[in-house]
Amino acid sequence: MEIRLAKRGDESAIMGLIMELAEYEKEPQEVANTSEKLGSDLFDKNLCESFVAELDGAIIGFALFYTAYSTWKGPIVYLEDLYVQPKFRGTGAGSKLFDTVVNTARERKSSRMDWQVLDWNTPAIEFYERKGARIDKNWYNGRMFFETQS
Amino acid sequence: MEIRLAKRGDESAIMGLIMELAEYEKEPQEVANTSEKLGSDLFDKNLCESFVAELDGAIIGFALFYTAYSTWKGPIVYLEDLYVQPKFRGTGAGSKLFDTVVNTARERKSSRMDWQVLDWNTPAIEFYERKGARIDKNWYNGRMFFETQS
Repeated sequence: MEIRLAKRGDESAIMGLIMELAEYEKEPQEVANTSEKLGSDLFDKNLCESFVAELDGAIIGFALFYTAYSTWKGPIVYLEDLYVQPKFRGTGAGSKLFDTVVNTARERKSSRMDWQVLDWNTPAIEFYERKGARIDKNWYNGRMFFETQS
Repeated sequence: MEIRLAKRGDESAIMGLIMELAEYEKEPQEVANTSEKLGSDLFDKNLCESFVAELDGAIIGFALFYTAYSTWKGPIVYLEDLYVQPKFRGTGAGSKLFDTVVNTARERKSSRMDWQVLDWNTPAIEFYERKGARIDKNWYNGRMFFETQS
């Protein structure tokens, strides 16, 4: 298994995994992104970055992140998605992907790395706690949705 | 009262308000940012942007935001902080600041604007609900903290 930075051409595989994760999170209807837009956002506009886990030439997991801004800490790494296909769980792929993003955050002198996890996703919460993470349960997410012409 | 984009020289006033908000949120010890770094992040590195509410020449509130990335929606506006000094609540400053960021998100063709609110901050939650926001209560925040030399 190899953990490497995503490169042009990976966007279709990553978009497929984004859909799988949205289905696991029970909101597949919320996905408006496309492979083409994701590829442009990753590789042309540099709005985000991703590591992928590759096994026998297939991408079986990914960790997508970007630089967020904390008024308390300055620039921080935000881990938007971490996902490994169910049949490859237990191979260490998720752990290696997470550690690779953590190392990136350290290299960039971030003092914090943030992400979110669903309250019912106990395996993920336990995974993060084993990594030494703090899980804060006292914040709600506020969201406004806008109609857009795509 | 005027709502305007923050400009160089506003960073000290904004940093003062960031500290007030951190005290209200009961974590002032977590603030590692400084006026100087904030000014550089806002006006040199363009890591974030801010609107301010100005009254009689004094900055009495601010709304700081940046472009985040949603794998479901693409680039979105993330409202990191919205704060108005207590004695100026009820003047409409918070409402105008929030609406100004919403309009910015619409202009930029964001399909979503995100932020967080503490679960005990009922006045803020009610304010956001009056604005038509959805408040999601089923996500936890994961966080890793790193030692940094500043």
